[in-house]
Amino acid sequence: MPFCVFQDFNLAAIYVSDAQYNRNVYFDTSPQAVRLYMLYNHWALKVLLYFFMLVNLSLAIFEDPAVYPLPIWATMLVEILCLLIFTIRVIHYAKVILRDKFWKDPKNICIIVILTLTLVDMIIYGALKAANYYGVRWSRVLRPLLLVNVTEGRQLRRAFRSIRNALPQIFYVFLLFMFSILIFALMALKLLGKRGLTNINGTPYFTSYLEIMFDLYVLVTTANSPDVMMPAYNANFFFAVFFIVYILINTYIFMSVFLAVVYNNYKKYLKEEVRQLVRAKRHKMVRAFGVLQEQREEGGEPVVTQASWNQLVRLVQPNLSNAHRELLWSVSDDKNQGAIGKVAFVQLADLLNIEIITIKSRPHPLQSLCPSLYQSAPSKLLCQLVQHRAFVMVYDLIILVNAVFIGLDEENPMIANSEWVFLALYILEILLKLYVFEPRVFFSKHSFWNWFDTVIVISALIATIVNSVMKSCNRQILDIVFILRVLRLIRVVDSIKRFNYISYSFIYPCIKIICICGDPVVYYIFAMVGMELFKGKVTFYEQSSTDPAKAYCGNPLLNGTDFAKLNYCKNNFNDVVSSFILLVELTVVNQWHDILYGFATVTHISARIFFVLFHVIVVIVILNIFVAFVLEAFFVEYSVDKSDLQTSLERKIEELELAVAQYVTLQRVVCGGHIEWLAQDLTLNFKITSQHFLLLCVIANCYYIL
Amino acid sequence: MPFCVFQDFNLAAIYVSDAQYNRNVYFDTSPQAVRLYMLYNHWALKVLLYFFMLVNLSLAIFEDPAVYPLPIWATMLVEILCLLIFTIRVIHYAKVILRDKFWKDPKNICIIVILTLTLVDMIIYGALKAANYYGVRWSRVLRPLLLVNVTEGRQLRRAFRSIRNALPQIFYVFLLFMFSILIFALMALKLLGKRGLTNINGTPYFTSYLEIMFDLYVLVTTANSPDVMMPAYNANFFFAVFFIVYILINTYIFMSVFLAVVYNNYKKYLKEEVRQLVRAKRHKMVRAFGVLQEQREEGGEPVVTQASWNQLVRLVQPNLSNAHRELLWSVSDDKNQGAIGKVAFVQLADLLNIEIITIKSRPHPLQSLCPSLYQSAPSKLLCQLVQHRAFVMVYDLIILVNAVFIGLDEENPMIANSEWVFLALYILEILLKLYVFEPRVFFSKHSFWNWFDTVIVISALIATIVNSVMKSCNRQILDIVFILRVLRLIRVVDSIKRFNYISYSFIYPCIKIICICGDPVVYYIFAMVGMELFKGKVTFYEQSSTDPAKAYCGNPLLNGTDFAKLNYCKNNFNDVVSSFILLVELTVVNQWHDILYGFATVTHISARIFFVLFHVIVVIVILNIFVAFVLEAFFVEYSVDKSDLQTSLERKIEELELAVAQYVTLQRVVCGGHIEWLAQDLTLNFKITSQHFLLLCVIANCYYIL
Repeated sequence: MPFCVFQDFNLAAIYVSDAQYNRNVYFDTSPQAVRLYMLYNHWALKVLLYFFMLVNLSLAIFEDPAVYPLPIWATMLVEILCLLIFTIRVIHYAKVILRDKFWKDPKNICIIVILTLTLVDMIIYGALKAANYYGVRWSRVLRPLLLVNVTEGRQLRRAFRSIRNALPQIFYVFLLFMFSILIFALMALKLLGKRGLTNINGTPYFTSYLEIMFDLYVLVTTANSPDVMMPAYNANFFFAVFFIVYILINTYIFMSVFLAVVYNNYKKYLKEEVRQLVRAKRHKMVRAFGVLQEQREEGGEPVVTQASWNQLVRLVQPNLSNAHRELLWSVSDDKNQGAIGKVAFVQLADLLNIEIITIKSRPHPLQSLCPSLYQSAPSKLLCQLVQHRAFVMVYDLIILVNAVFIGLDEENPMIANSEWVFLALYILEILLKLYVFEPRVFFSKHSFWNWFDTVIVISALIATIVNSVMKSCNRQILDIVFILRVLRLIRVVDSIKRFNYISYSFIYPCIKIICICGDPVVYYIFAMVGMELFKGKVTFYEQSSTDPAKAYCGNPLLNGTDFAKLNYCKNNFNDVVSSFILLVELTVVNQWHDILYGFATVTHISARIFFVLFHVIVVIVILNIFVAFVLEAFFVEYSVDKSDLQTSLERKIEELELAVAQYVTLQRVVCGGHIEWLAQDLTLNFKITSQHFLLLCVIANCYYIL
Repeated sequence: MPFCVFQDFNLAAIYVSDAQYNRNVYFDTSPQAVRLYMLYNHWALKVLLYFFMLVNLSLAIFEDPAVYPLPIWATMLVEILCLLIFTIRVIHYAKVILRDKFWKDPKNICIIVILTLTLVDMIIYGALKAANYYGVRWSRVLRPLLLVNVTEGRQLRRAFRSIRNALPQIFYVFLLFMFSILIFALMALKLLGKRGLTNINGTPYFTSYLEIMFDLYVLVTTANSPDVMMPAYNANFFFAVFFIVYILINTYIFMSVFLAVVYNNYKKYLKEEVRQLVRAKRHKMVRAFGVLQEQREEGGEPVVTQASWNQLVRLVQPNLSNAHRELLWSVSDDKNQGAIGKVAFVQLADLLNIEIITIKSRPHPLQSLCPSLYQSAPSKLLCQLVQHRAFVMVYDLIILVNAVFIGLDEENPMIANSEWVFLALYILEILLKLYVFEPRVFFSKHSFWNWFDTVIVISALIATIVNSVMKSCNRQILDIVFILRVLRLIRVVDSIKRFNYISYSFIYPCIKIICICGDPVVYYIFAMVGMELFKGKVTFYEQSSTDPAKAYCGNPLLNGTDFAKLNYCKNNFNDVVSSFILLVELTVVNQWHDILYGFATVTHISARIFFVLFHVIVVIVILNIFVAFVLEAFFVEYSVDKSDLQTSLERKIEELELAVAQYVTLQRVVCGGHIEWLAQDLTLNFKITSQHFLLLCVIANCYYIL
């Protein structure tokens, strides 16, 4: 029997953790490279990378046009530091993986090209500025692309792949869509152009072909409905039919077809990618098995002994408790042979991904301190009262009454004082619960609502005290107090079981989708381009300003336009924060034509291209991917709620047509089979998170109260 | 062997045609009732019913508030006639089906109640009018419900069922959605209410809780973005974060979840309904088999002979050609035994639903008339030229050039005359094609684009001639000429094969979905209620009018409101046509808050309820069902294009998880097996329409050029 050397365990551990986190790195298997690779995967280095990534992206706040201006040398210095860090990271990566694999991967070449271009741009810009010429920091557009191309940006890349995959299909629908707009515009020109109709501001209505096309494009986004139709409708109501047909075809049917195309592609490629991930994971686990395998008897199947397995798991997840590791082993080695074959070993990566929260039932501290009091009849009655459903309902009622009081005028002294009563009631609730429940159970990792309650109530208490002590009516402290008070109301959602699955389908998408869809990346790029094109064209004057230029946003060209009339001066590209907010407004689409006309007025008519491009990319492509994400996430969550865990998991696997049947078996074993083992703990709470389902994270609980 | 009497064939024929058209009527099987039922299903009676249904609904055009006013006695008389027709139809139906089944069916009770209520309402209204009192024709709201409840309104009922099924789910999400708006409104009130901010028109900003809630609800529809945010954003850009979070959660995530809920329900119930339909169809076919079955040998399986089968099919579809019937028989009796068993017989309903277009290849008439000329070398060259791909491309180019010319100013004589050149070119194209292709092939039922071309070109020719003869520049004829010219351009779509499947996924949904979604029914009801609530509150003055009241739509209350400023006077409920157009505008959602504020100003603040209710029902529920329809229809169409017919059909059946495997077999037989039989015709064009897939109509072609 060969004895495994330390390096072998390192190698196997890396294979397992790669499988666990779905990393696809073809690293060099030499002991030195393996050690480097372990360092490469160290969390501190990753945090460092992301930190400098963030610093690099935030430079936009300090660079011209800046929110907080800094001298050029300062931002340049920070940027060079960032570039240095990124370069070191790339060199580290190059040392870890095989030479030919490194140069074959487009990601690495992308990063090197971006770093080089950035450096070149910085030199040119520095030189131009030193010579007092006008310079453009064009390489800022490339910054978010770094985020996409680092090894860790896997999910972002996946989002971009799904966008790229959908593009050819979208393109054909888009052509047909444009053709439809062309035809309708031609018809509108012929029908309405010669009638001498006027817009509301007296300009001629529908006389230029390009203008009509553009107006009809805006109508697809519904932003100028019904205004664009009113002059024609006022002339004759039959023209309304033209617009209704147009809206039906282009707004409703075409936009639905865009969603259908994106959703269809998304589902198709998601399935394919998940299949590939599962295959790669199995492949890595087989290699790990190959490193650790031993032959217990001549001609027998190769196996991994419990000792090797334990050492491996300790290396992969050092902070795993002994009990947890033993559970995993007993699941793998269900026949209790002291060693496991390949099939059972391959499960390990999935097993490690199952989050198991073990809560040891301890006696309440008060019971240990003074058992006679805690076990007395009034104390027991109190415990029963707090655990009763009515207790929850009473506090829901208090929250609702509180909501009404918050809505009332807080300057009334009666209402201002009522706040103290409510605060006292909330603190009483927490104290009562702490009296009844063991504090470590009450504040366990998965008790989200208990943490939420306590943090909000204590913060509100502190803020209210500070506020009443200072008596200065400091607006900011008051704001915090108000926000905390209102946030407290959200807790009602927890009480209504029905809402739980719906709110689950929010929390997860909320956090992940927005990042994953690549929204921030696209926004950043558009913000950079927008700032170069439109900075300083529109100026915002404070409310208190008496400058006559305030009426036209500091640009005489805007005098009398809707942009100035609607007081949109703050919707500008003068710094990165304003740009982001403006881009969100453009995503919402409403009134975007007024914003667009404003910027086209102060620059050139071709500025429209920028806005239409943003609309096509963000609203037609990315927003539909977002909806597709939510639809998929919802369907998965929905099926979890509807049936018991078992069938839902099976169904999900069926849905994705994966060959991971052993996953289901495992599930059954953990939840159903090991009751004798679980009996050691009074309460055991399983939380299963299958990370390889990408977004479609399976969150499900099975409670055992034995 | 028993000989089947004529009544038996009638009964069997009714079962088969009920199965074919998915009718679920438990009719009496006595010969008299069967004959009555055949009459009941006669197309003329159905057309009559639908005609009077339409007349009944169109009465709204002539009743007060009317587009074309008619005296009360005239509309009342017509309505009584309609009611009479509907009553006769119900009595006819009662005679056909079993007594207890009639009273158990809620549809019939609904119809009777509606008819009675309408009569009562008419009497009350007539009496009130005769006594010169004010009366409301409230029963007009019930009219579209008749359409839903007649036996033929099956698809509408299905749409309403799917709405009803989705309602409980939607309700819970809606509660959570409203809760979220409440929380955000409370936060907005606390954060922004006391800052002394003002709206653009100087009114205080975000001070009343109800107003904030309503503004935030409107923001969900994006109609008042970014205006509602600007005062806060101008004060401090951190407040923009509040609005962005709000939009993200409520506009994007909640609206996607609404779509997900509706889509999920839609898919689930569609599957269930299709399964029921298939079961009912089989059941009816088995009953038909039971009527016609004979035993050829002692103890053998019961069969239906070819003679009985032929007589049955002749009764069910008298206009079926002999060849077609023989094809169907040879498919059913594939072992050529002269009789078929139950399994083969049950297929008949599906077989009859397969539309088979047989085109006999005949020699070109010119070839018969003067063969020497038609067969000569120049003639053959011409035929080759016309059939060449370049010919299509040349004409696509001509169409594009034509598009440019249409876009140019037609008052230029050169361009006005060019129209004649284009017309001549198009006519030449049709003549050339007629020279090459056999006219009956060219104008066959399924050659949509040939028909389209010819009709458009000939109409354009006539209209252009009429226009140039009259020289009066009559606007209406000119309009027609222009529309025809532009429509001609659509033909380009046909040339690009890629577009074909996309455009197929339009044509079908376009026609069906809108009716099926129950949109018109809901619109009609809202139009009726809206007219009673808001008629005459807003007046539209012609452009030429100099009445000072024109500036405020004839209602001094509107003086200075956005409604009047935006010139929305024609958006009113003064007649049924205006009401429908206004409701479409409300569906598009943009600027609906201005319209709403207008109507709330002239009536009462509670008028908002009407508009919000319309938004919830039409935009949140029905529009999402519409999107779900389009998504499903697209996915089905998409899979048809992607693979060959066979797999797509199988896949579709898999998708719907139906036990209709024989359908696939049949398909394979028709398309693959009977080539020797098909060889009798040179060209055979199959068009398969499976009506029982509801909307998911399978359109697919397989061409045989032998």
